[in-house]
Amino acid sequence: MIAVVCLNPALDVTHHVTAVDWAGVNRPGAVHARPGGKGLNVARTLRALGVDVLVMGLTGGITGAGVEAALGELGVPAAFTRIAGETRRTFTVVDGRGATAAFHEAGPGVTAAEFAAFRARYERALTGSAAVVLSGSLPPGLPAGSYATLIEMATAACVPAVLDAHGEALRRGAAAGPAIVKPNLAELEALAGRRLSAAGGADLTGVAAAARELRQAGARAVVTSLGAEGLLAATGDGRWQARTPAPVAGNATGAGDAVAAALAHGLVLGRAWDERLRHAAALGAATAAAPVAGEFSPADYARALREVTVREVAVEEVS
Amino acid sequence: MIAVVCLNPALDVTHHVTAVDWAGVNRPGAVHARPGGKGLNVARTLRALGVDVLVMGLTGGITGAGVEAALGELGVPAAFTRIAGETRRTFTVVDGRGATAAFHEAGPGVTAAEFAAFRARYERALTGSAAVVLSGSLPPGLPAGSYATLIEMATAACVPAVLDAHGEALRRGAAAGPAIVKPNLAELEALAGRRLSAAGGADLTGVAAAARELRQAGARAVVTSLGAEGLLAATGDGRWQARTPAPVAGNATGAGDAVAAALAHGLVLGRAWDERLRHAAALGAATAAAPVAGEFSPADYARALREVTVREVAVEEVS
Repeated sequence: MIAVVCLNPALDVTHHVTAVDWAGVNRPGAVHARPGGKGLNVARTLRALGVDVLVMGLTGGITGAGVEAALGELGVPAAFTRIAGETRRTFTVVDGRGATAAFHEAGPGVTAAEFAAFRARYERALTGSAAVVLSGSLPPGLPAGSYATLIEMATAACVPAVLDAHGEALRRGAAAGPAIVKPNLAELEALAGRRLSAAGGADLTGVAAAARELRQAGARAVVTSLGAEGLLAATGDGRWQARTPAPVAGNATGAGDAVAAALAHGLVLGRAWDERLRHAAALGAATAAAPVAGEFSPADYARALREVTVREVAVEEVS
Repeated sequence: MIAVVCLNPALDVTHHVTAVDWAGVNRPGAVHARPGGKGLNVARTLRALGVDVLVMGLTGGITGAGVEAALGELGVPAAFTRIAGETRRTFTVVDGRGATAAFHEAGPGVTAAEFAAFRARYERALTGSAAVVLSGSLPPGLPAGSYATLIEMATAACVPAVLDAHGEALRRGAAAGPAIVKPNLAELEALAGRRLSAAGGADLTGVAAAARELRQAGARAVVTSLGAEGLLAATGDGRWQARTPAPVAGNATGAGDAVAAALAHGLVLGRAWDERLRHAAALGAATAAAPVAGEFSPADYARALREVTVREVAVEEVS
């Protein structure tokens, strides 16, 4: 079983409006509401791969109850710790002429006692877990070191952790020694405090240097998603780059979450890094092509697996 | 006790954003969620006047549960009939530079069996009701004659009805003989199929003629809200116009709902029409000045009561 930690889940509401009046009253033609948050996408992807998962996180209020109910309908097992604050909503307006506006609530406050109750359940769940994925933003009430705490607990229980976060939560989480961290290029740039791209794409040497710093800080492996240039893995065994022939278009958030899911899956299966990266790139591409994060067509996944190229990156290339 | 029928309640979500990016991701600085729908505003206003109320309507899904919970927190007694469909949300984005965009979901489908279950509870509630207010849009699943049916039931139980609706629901509801219908100028124009305003404001003669048609169709009295020109009541005892010295600015929807509440209150108290209209105009003005529909400052209400002027409109003025 893979435990998926989603501390700040959301109810994602989408309104489709033929021609939005940004200064008036609109009556959407179609309305969708589904559970969201990066961790939930990871869990749904793992479920679709046939992996047993348990979503763990914090939910509160009516919106939290809505997230739990909708997740139940999707058949994703979850054990949420209830909190007094209200689970956040995200609201997206899709205009028939192509514009999209999104409004993301920050999430609830979380008390120290509530986070302690979560940790107690998390510690019990680690006993039966082959890996844990920690994914997405922290609710504003939690300290930036929260992922680091959870990674230390996983390490103490001999459970490898995959971390997909950004900013201070990523920096401090990486220092706690997770098996894999998965920043995208912008997140790695923000952490390194310098540009890692040049005209035309990522600066591989710069990315490798920033990944090396993250590994020196504590992360055992760093997989950076580079958009059109695929994935770059920096590990104790070497470096690999995986690319799809066509650049990944579509749902970038969903694609990144699928990459995290595939990395956790490959970790549990004990796949060698080159194959682990091939599956991650293929699943990312297949998910980007699907209309909803957390979903992919098995045929797209199979085709992408055949098309992905993985090459080892020599030390001299990136130093 | 006054029964307030709110067949299509809503969860009103408002996001305040300093400077909205209509083509990007926004993180609202403040988020408010409260129960909405015109009937709920009427009920809250009546509660604030010290009147016992019972909100009756249809709720479904998680959003419906949220509306019920929030109404409970506000101390408004309610007896909702649960339906399989999902209660609607309205979503409003308020930009710090003054623009406001609103997105109103239509509401749930309602089966014939669900509406029959509602009617059975409604019939029982009529026994203890001094009046009933029917307010707001019908959910898309209900036939346009639904308010007419409920007014006929009230009449059979000797309970006077106040109807605040628009379009076909208003036309058919008026034909069922309610004590008062309360259109605004635009709603009366839509029903009459002709313009009732001239440069500078409402055409009183035209409004009176359209109100006469509504009375001939079945409504016992018609109170039309005219914005800056106040309220015009057309009744079997004569016609009155109530005006506030300063035009009513602020929350127009909330003001209209307060007028409906005050008309029902005056009806139950047996106030003469001139006084009934004075209170309605004053409560509308006080509510327009409040930040939230369904609320008003008692001091504003008292001051407006002193300032409102009511005059009888002679037949020759409007024919």
